[in-house]
Amino acid sequence: MNFVGSHILSVSQFDRQAIRTVFEVADRMLPYANRQRITRVLEGAILGNMFFEPSTRTRVSFGCAWNLLGGEVRETTEIKASAIAKGESFYDTARVLSGYSDMIVMRHQLEGSVDEFAVASRVPVINGGDGANEHPSQALLDLYTIRKEMKDRGKNIDGLRIALVGDLRYGRAVHSLCKLLTLYENMHFILISPPELSLSAEYVDDIKRAGHKVLESDELQTGIGHADILYVTRTQEERFPNQAEADKYKGLFRLNQSIYTEYCEPNTVIMHPLPRDSRGNANELDNDLNENPNLAIFRQTDNGVLIRMALFALILDVVDKVEETSSKVNWYTARRF
Amino acid sequence: MNFVGSHILSVSQFDRQAIRTVFEVADRMLPYANRQRITRVLEGAILGNMFFEPSTRTRVSFGCAWNLLGGEVRETTEIKASAIAKGESFYDTARVLSGYSDMIVMRHQLEGSVDEFAVASRVPVINGGDGANEHPSQALLDLYTIRKEMKDRGKNIDGLRIALVGDLRYGRAVHSLCKLLTLYENMHFILISPPELSLSAEYVDDIKRAGHKVLESDELQTGIGHADILYVTRTQEERFPNQAEADKYKGLFRLNQSIYTEYCEPNTVIMHPLPRDSRGNANELDNDLNENPNLAIFRQTDNGVLIRMALFALILDVVDKVEETSSKVNWYTARRF
Amino acid sequence: MNFVGSHILSVSQFDRQAIRTVFEVADRMLPYANRQRITRVLEGAILGNMFFEPSTRTRVSFGCAWNLLGGEVRETTEIKASAIAKGESFYDTARVLSGYSDMIVMRHQLEGSVDEFAVASRVPVINGGDGANEHPSQALLDLYTIRKEMKDRGKNIDGLRIALVGDLRYGRAVHSLCKLLTLYENMHFILISPPELSLSAEYVDDIKRAGHKVLESDELQTGIGHADILYVTRTQEERFPNQAEADKYKGLFRLNQSIYTEYCEPNTVIMHPLPRDSRGNANELDNDLNENPNLAIFRQTDNGVLIRMALFALILDVVDKVEETSSKVNWYTARRF
Repeated sequence: MNFVGSHILSVSQFDRQAIRTVFEVADRMLPYANRQRITRVLEGAILGNMFFEPSTRTRVSFGCAWNLLGGEVRETTEIKASAIAKGESFYDTARVLSGYSDMIVMRHQLEGSVDEFAVASRVPVINGGDGANEHPSQALLDLYTIRKEMKDRGKNIDGLRIALVGDLRYGRAVHSLCKLLTLYENMHFILISPPELSLSAEYVDDIKRAGHKVLESDELQTGIGHADILYVTRTQEERFPNQAEADKYKGLFRLNQSIYTEYCEPNTVIMHPLPRDSRGNANELDNDLNENPNLAIFRQTDNGVLIRMALFALILDVVDKVEETSSKVNWYTARRF
Repeated sequence: MNFVGSHILSVSQFDRQAIRTVFEVADRMLPYANRQRITRVLEGAILGNMFFEPSTRTRVSFGCAWNLLGGEVRETTEIKASAIAKGESFYDTARVLSGYSDMIVMRHQLEGSVDEFAVASRVPVINGGDGANEHPSQALLDLYTIRKEMKDRGKNIDGLRIALVGDLRYGRAVHSLCKLLTLYENMHFILISPPELSLSAEYVDDIKRAGHKVLESDELQTGIGHADILYVTRTQEERFPNQAEADKYKGLFRLNQSIYTEYCEPNTVIMHPLPRDSRGNANELDNDLNENPNLAIFRQTDNGVLIRMALFALILDVVDKVEETSSKVNWYTARRF
Repeated sequence: MNFVGSHILSVSQFDRQAIRTVFEVADRMLPYANRQRITRVLEGAILGNMFFEPSTRTRVSFGCAWNLLGGEVRETTEIKASAIAKGESFYDTARVLSGYSDMIVMRHQLEGSVDEFAVASRVPVINGGDGANEHPSQALLDLYTIRKEMKDRGKNIDGLRIALVGDLRYGRAVHSLCKLLTLYENMHFILISPPELSLSAEYVDDIKRAGHKVLESDELQTGIGHADILYVTRTQEERFPNQAEADKYKGLFRLNQSIYTEYCEPNTVIMHPLPRDSRGNANELDNDLNENPNLAIFRQTDNGVLIRMALFALILDVVDKVEETSSKVNWYTARRF
């Protein structure tokens, strides 16, 4: 895979070598994300951070990753202010906005919208989420986190046993992560969900065809004992036909410290694509896990900055200039990673 | 016209010499907008990009132009979050906000609001659109595009034959462009609109008084054959009393490649202030024109960045420092202009 | 008080020495806010300007203060786009967002929300307003303005006679200012409000316990004659149970030039936390005061930038590096202070 000048639209673009490249560059971004050094490699470059669907976390994460490389960010945060609302095609929007910036991150609720946009864009586009379809940087940061956490525990991604818990039907993050994981070897997938929210056959078949083991269950305790990673998800309320339908499934699987202690192997890693729903009727990951050092959910979002910096640096071909444009930090910094 | 420290509120401020100055500076901005060089001339300067009416394109274009000169942008994107909604006068808003930045671009739906704001502002203000009234940078970028496109075809603005097509009654862009064009000589204006949406007598009279020829028509094919430029507009739905009233006029004039081929002279330039409405019931410029090299609509928005950079540089008196604070570009760039 | 790495959550954190420190640093920020010099001391640093309640003025003021120190700003401007709306706890939001920036300014309508957020944040947090509770930078800029205005008139904060006028019940700015003023000596507080909107006993008792004099009145003219400062407030409509209830109190106290001339001592300073409500039925400070040199309301907001720069510089421990990273200004600047 040649990153320079490329669009990042789907996890399907990535093979193991491409993933390895992204992860190696992400590792090299740590001193900058961690505020040990600053780099000005993208000084003068502009990111069009075009979020046509509300988002704080992903939008700020991309914007921050760009700023950490020294560039400027121009943003939009909703669709109603946009020309799209006045009947403009994605083609036109892309042609226009791509005259304003050096790269575009785009989110839009319509599946396929970002692909359509990218065709007409004159600058590289990263898919920041197109409805229930793709959100490749999320899948990459999840996999990067898995790699790091496994490495810290003396293991690899190959041979991994991962339990996917909750809404496996509508969870975009789960789908993309599954696609990436099938590139590795000898995996065990433990799929824990209510039958109505189980992983679609298409994904299960892909996993099996790639030679991995699949165990399905509708009970939390059953499978988590044999997992290296628990990947827990929120019920994707916004994808259900109505709230009542979504509420039926909220709170079905709740992991807390006592269940963890009783059923999991020591050092089992807990992940979640965030936000976790901490309201009483959901609470899929209890707050009493917050001090558990195996709770990796905030390391995931921290890693997101590294992954996004890596994608930017690769696409704009500045990986080797990051260090030469770097300098020391002037101000007080708390260590974060 | 002395630009330094001035407000840009109306196209009426510009004479031919002032326009020539803006265009010359705009030409010099090309290497920076085109990412061949970066300049840091406004490093440390802050733009207050105050959009009290939704906008993506114009807001991002101004913000990007400022960033390209090395400055920072602070923004607002709606009115409901503002003190104006709590009964604050434009005078107060201007006094306050002008303490935060080095220049302000303001958009507000109320006609005359930006003038009122500018009186109290302690820093230069550019009108980014006040309702149906003025949007001077749009008119300048349209005229700049006309000059460029004509020059590429061995012609001048003097002697130009321009067909204005569609909603000529509510189209702010058309009104401002007409005002600027009357400064030139021996123009032919071909006004094509339904009678109810024709250009108001006040504008027509001004054009005639300035010695230009005017032909009015309610049929697309009639006039476009003799035009150097077709300036097509969207029905300004938001200015109509209701949607039903607006819908009556949508789709009346639709230009596509076969009409273009049959009726237009070769190399007739197609312009549009954008967004074009590409929904089936409107579609004033068909997508089958997208590969027509005479479709200049995206060159217009690209030129907008140059014009806005030029206005900023002239008002802040940094034109001659742009180059001396410039350096090479570190990253991969696609050519855009 | 040790500023480095600290959260700024409440005015209660400040004693006279801490206030003196902030004000001395604020004084040193003047050449930068005034665009006589630029500084790049925070080049590469990122502010998370997290406004989960609409605001233009305060948000832009914080963002601008950070930009003036050379840093970048990432923002959010509403709650509905945020994960909080999907059931995320402040703990989680803080853990996530604090991985993206070097400091966070947070506003949220819920009292105590910012405290809760700060506990989990890995970077320093400044309270930008949590409902009717605290907004410490506003109180500091008010006190800084009082100090400056008094100094210009040969007086000190000690011994000050201040009239607080209007909605003293719901006005957060008034409450915080009172807390700070009680740290000084021999003050006269003249409290002018309708009985229903009088300052709560808790604040009055604190003032008296600190040894200051309190005079209460429900008539404007009564007390303003003996004041050095008139601190006039808007009726905080948004804190009332409904609009009708709020409207009862609008317009009860209206200061204009003729009342000022008749009742006030010469050079009495007029302050207001802004926005002032200039609609006919409110109009607590008439526009005919705009040319009165004692109207300090816009000097207040200008001072806000200095105070916010000072807090940032102190917390990030860069006060002594501001000057050494500074340079001359390239562009045309109007003098503002």
